Amino acid sequence: MIGFADLLPMTDGDLATMTFLQDVVDIMLGYIVKSFDRSTKVIDFQYPNELLQMNNWELSDEPETLDDVLVNCRATLEYAVKTAHPRYFNQLSTGLDMVGLAADWLTSTANTNMFTYEVAPVFVLLEYVTLKKMREIIGWQDGHGDGIFSPGGAISNMYAMLLARFKMFPEVKERGMASLPRLAAFTSEHSHFSIKKGAAALGIGTESVICVKVDERGKMIPSDLERRIVDAKQRGLVPFFVSATAGTTVYGAFDPLIAIADICRKHGVWMHVDGAWGGSLLMSRKHRWKLNGVERANSMTWNPHKMMSVPLQCSALLVREEGLMQKCNQMQASYLFQEDKQYDVSYDTGDKAIQCGRHVDIFKLWLMWRAKGTVGFEAQIDKCLELSEYLYDKIKDREGYEMVAPIIKARMMEYGTTMVSYQPQGNKVNFFRMVISNPAATFEDINFLIEEIERLGQDL
Amino acid sequence: MIGFADLLPMTDGDLATMTFLQDVVDIMLGYIVKSFDRSTKVIDFQYPNELLQMNNWELSDEPETLDDVLVNCRATLEYAVKTAHPRYFNQLSTGLDMVGLAADWLTSTANTNMFTYEVAPVFVLLEYVTLKKMREIIGWQDGHGDGIFSPGGAISNMYAMLLARFKMFPEVKERGMASLPRLAAFTSEHSHFSIKKGAAALGIGTESVICVKVDERGKMIPSDLERRIVDAKQRGLVPFFVSATAGTTVYGAFDPLIAIADICRKHGVWMHVDGAWGGSLLMSRKHRWKLNGVERANSMTWNPHKMMSVPLQCSALLVREEGLMQKCNQMQASYLFQEDKQYDVSYDTGDKAIQCGRHVDIFKLWLMWRAKGTVGFEAQIDKCLELSEYLYDKIKDREGYEMVAPIIKARMMEYGTTMVSYQPQGNKVNFFRMVISNPAATFEDINFLIEEIERLGQDL
Repeated sequence: MIGFADLLPMTDGDLATMTFLQDVVDIMLGYIVKSFDRSTKVIDFQYPNELLQMNNWELSDEPETLDDVLVNCRATLEYAVKTAHPRYFNQLSTGLDMVGLAADWLTSTANTNMFTYEVAPVFVLLEYVTLKKMREIIGWQDGHGDGIFSPGGAISNMYAMLLARFKMFPEVKERGMASLPRLAAFTSEHSHFSIKKGAAALGIGTESVICVKVDERGKMIPSDLERRIVDAKQRGLVPFFVSATAGTTVYGAFDPLIAIADICRKHGVWMHVDGAWGGSLLMSRKHRWKLNGVERANSMTWNPHKMMSVPLQCSALLVREEGLMQKCNQMQASYLFQEDKQYDVSYDTGDKAIQCGRHVDIFKLWLMWRAKGTVGFEAQIDKCLELSEYLYDKIKDREGYEMVAPIIKARMMEYGTTMVSYQPQGNKVNFFRMVISNPAATFEDINFLIEEIERLGQDL
Repeated sequence: MIGFADLLPMTDGDLATMTFLQDVVDIMLGYIVKSFDRSTKVIDFQYPNELLQMNNWELSDEPETLDDVLVNCRATLEYAVKTAHPRYFNQLSTGLDMVGLAADWLTSTANTNMFTYEVAPVFVLLEYVTLKKMREIIGWQDGHGDGIFSPGGAISNMYAMLLARFKMFPEVKERGMASLPRLAAFTSEHSHFSIKKGAAALGIGTESVICVKVDERGKMIPSDLERRIVDAKQRGLVPFFVSATAGTTVYGAFDPLIAIADICRKHGVWMHVDGAWGGSLLMSRKHRWKLNGVERANSMTWNPHKMMSVPLQCSALLVREEGLMQKCNQMQASYLFQEDKQYDVSYDTGDKAIQCGRHVDIFKLWLMWRAKGTVGFEAQIDKCLELSEYLYDKIKDREGYEMVAPIIKARMMEYGTTMVSYQPQGNKVNFFRMVISNPAATFEDINFLIEEIERLGQDL
């Protein structure tokens, strides 16, 4: 029986390696084609204890054969959620882009790390090129500024808060929060929970995150923001950070950035735009007006792994001031960032990060951008928004199934025909949170979803 | 010409998709086989400005054809560092494991997120199984405890510091560092820079990280640790965190964990073991004694992407106390972590994380473990240590090239025959930091490296 010891780097392992990898590729190709097939289930749902018992998942002392390894690969995909399925609407990241997938395979094959130009020359340059392009699209002059790809929107938002604090109080790096006055951060009551998570982690505390009221469509009310900033100052707090949301997690609302920018300037507060979800609308000439004012922000989170359908993970933090990230985070580790290297060490971006090693997240975005062009992303985003308008028109006059969302959801999982998330918001009861970012979805899939929800809830 | 619009999810896109993906696979297979071939260069080095001009890397409005996409894939690999090459010794993560690679391809294909069981049922279970196994290997009773896979060792260490602070002062989550006394963390002067990065980010401040002296072999001196803890207390600081290092970044030294555990217990301080590099020695019956005492730690960082050669990224934080991570980091976002779900929500691990979305890093480790068994990892680690003893024996009586490390390094990059890092440490001049974690390396490759360094330095 052939095992891992027959593969490269073993002598004469070439043939066995090619055969094994090709077998895995064939399994994956079969899965991919099936994922896009509407007649297959989105998920073959099993309860955790059942799934634990349906297969032997334990780790043992002894090796398996490569045939067993292939069996494991098949089993893993069999019980996976088909996130590429045209009827998977469950999360903000849905769909599977074929060029992005190919790029992610290639990234794994290159198996390197973003800390220095030395070990990732091409990827470091592509990050440089892409971040510059994104800053141009934001509208910062000549694409100047800074940025990084981080492990997700929550970390990107945390970076922004870290930078805002450092900008106002650079001594915090050495001396900690003990040397600072009490800070206050502001974000809307519909903003993402990562703002509070970040404040907790950074030693600022969740109580220092002051929630600003939203209007009936979920947008931050600027007058309430200003009132709370003034109030915080009167209580002796120092406002240092406003996070406006471009595309809230539940309503998909866009905070009014121009009015917020005016308030931030007036009070000398760092303006961050959390565009993890809605930032991609900047690629659409038709819809980018929703982010008017973003060019006045000090920083922005923008996750191409959401509405642009780049495979997970791909989140960018863009920063208007160049050099600040480096000053805030650098520790000048001499084993990585030698100053006496033979090349321009400004390409060694690792010391900007709070991480040491950093995963290569850039190549899939870059390669998709080359394959689609800006216009390709634009078309994809415009189509998602068209589908969501269609859905809105179809259901705006129907009511009645909100109260029983969890029961319908449970049935939906068991049938596996489609997947959509649900949640309460404030004093509202549970309702379905419909996410349309899957490039595979069509008008028919929206119709199917509505009918399926009604069918599953029929006897309730 | 065929473009992205001919691929899935487009109607009848199956064939074009299979052809395109197979073309990319063929490019990768060629690259893989070449990477292990000692007659090829490790790197075809180009200076940043040259590399920028050697190809068109810019992003444009218009789409490319799929043929152009393939050209881009080839160019990217052409200038990549062959991290799988048997003579690549540059970083702590080297080598390319074929089963790990296949698993990473499959992970990309599944394209999901670790936050809930609902969207990643298999991966969530595999993380559960693997973390438990790792805790058993550490020696925690019945594998009890907690843990998470995080985006690298620096973030794992930051998690540990966050938990230690929360354990002692749970009010910090809501009220921030302003409500706390001045804290003190302790780590050796040879420890990884991420301890200070973490302290800066968490609002503790780098000045609160007190460096403990090491002996001539780079191990923390326990009596100096205790002296500094006592001294800090006298100065009114509150010692809350000791990070012992199991495998320092430069010397590869192991701090004496038993003595450190005694001191931590005596003074009521959280004991963390940063085993990002050396933690994998726990898999070796011959070498695990170097971590004796680790079972008394409160937390441990262990990066399978280093000495176990799992593809990047794969870093685990293991925690002895169950439930603490959840309490420390949870924000109970109602759109993800609905309490009225139909399955056991204790499998929804996302709220333990400071991230929201979390990349699937588990599958490659799990599949490699199945393919090799614990004994396979053990053999791989024992071989690396054998090679490093061999290297030590070969060079211990030679001297003289330390002073010129940067020049030899620059030549090495230009020839591209091998890659090894260099650095100064304290008052020592630059020297080569030889990392042996590449499973493809043999005794002959070690001989080659020594000869190559001498050849490149001949006329200096």
